[in-house]
Amino acid sequence: MDSCKMEAVLRILSTVFLVLTAFLVGLDTETKLIFHAFPRKATFKDLNALYVLVWIASAAAVYNLIQLFRSYIQTGFMKDLTASYRCLAWGIYLLDQAATYLIFAANTAAAQGSILAVTGEKSFQWMKLCNTYTRFCHQIGGALLCGYIAAILMIITSSISAYALFRLYSPKQFLLLKGK
Amino acid sequence: MDSCKMEAVLRILSTVFLVLTAFLVGLDTETKLIFHAFPRKATFKDLNALYVLVWIASAAAVYNLIQLFRSYIQTGFMKDLTASYRCLAWGIYLLDQAATYLIFAANTAAAQGSILAVTGEKSFQWMKLCNTYTRFCHQIGGALLCGYIAAILMIITSSISAYALFRLYSPKQFLLLKGK
Repeated sequence: MDSCKMEAVLRILSTVFLVLTAFLVGLDTETKLIFHAFPRKATFKDLNALYVLVWIASAAAVYNLIQLFRSYIQTGFMKDLTASYRCLAWGIYLLDQAATYLIFAANTAAAQGSILAVTGEKSFQWMKLCNTYTRFCHQIGGALLCGYIAAILMIITSSISAYALFRLYSPKQFLLLKGK
Repeated sequence: MDSCKMEAVLRILSTVFLVLTAFLVGLDTETKLIFHAFPRKATFKDLNALYVLVWIASAAAVYNLIQLFRSYIQTGFMKDLTASYRCLAWGIYLLDQAATYLIFAANTAAAQGSILAVTGEKSFQWMKLCNTYTRFCHQIGGALLCGYIAAILMIITSSISAYALFRLYSPKQFLLLKGK
């Protein structure tokens, strides 16, 4: 399997897991009666970090689809070591790095917020919430798992784009091109 | 400037900022009187994410120093394209990636916890804390800034180790070595 096919498979899988994350978080609701009288509905909008995660996961899924389309139209031409190919490789590398760190950060922030909702923070008098909204919290847990799988797939993808870029350079001298 | 010198400078700077982060968080305390009578001391141990950040920042600083020592004794020999050099390059690349994502995650989790301490979360009845412990929160803010600078420096360092590894491979065929 060459690096292009591997990249395509990884991007498709990332997209699937990112969409799954966005849907699992976005569609998660649970209604409970407070003091057996007042209904209170928990949604992802209760915690800012979850709200941000839905948007960033959706954006990252779209980004991966665009990159997939780019690699599809790119196959067949530009497979040489021209300057434009090099520019493209730098662009893909930097965008992949940015997207990967962004989705990793969004996931980690949501995970930290969720951990606080599970454990509470006694010294701050922040109460636990997941003993009330148990099903809601389990679904968020599943979503975060999907999010981390997507993040790991994107880390591998960005390694492949690093490989695609840096193999163009000479092993002997710093940032000297191989063709020279 | 060649990649070795650049790497050394980046690792020294990362270490400085990581140590700064650990000290700023670890030594941050503020005592306030609650209801004008009961003294209450805020420390980094109040929030788990800050506690974890101190340890991970310290560990990452030690890791960077070890890598600095490694690159110092490595200069002069092993500068060729042998199999052992390649193994070393893979090892450094993978360790750098792991360390970078770890410090980035620790920082982001601490930032998310701190944002909740600044804004509170009305829907969860989690109260704001930074209007009480203002000086404490400002110091944490400075520490997180240093932490993110260190994370960015480590991202650049891990790009250099990706460059050092992947330039060994052929630009034509997937994972074929240049020497062959």
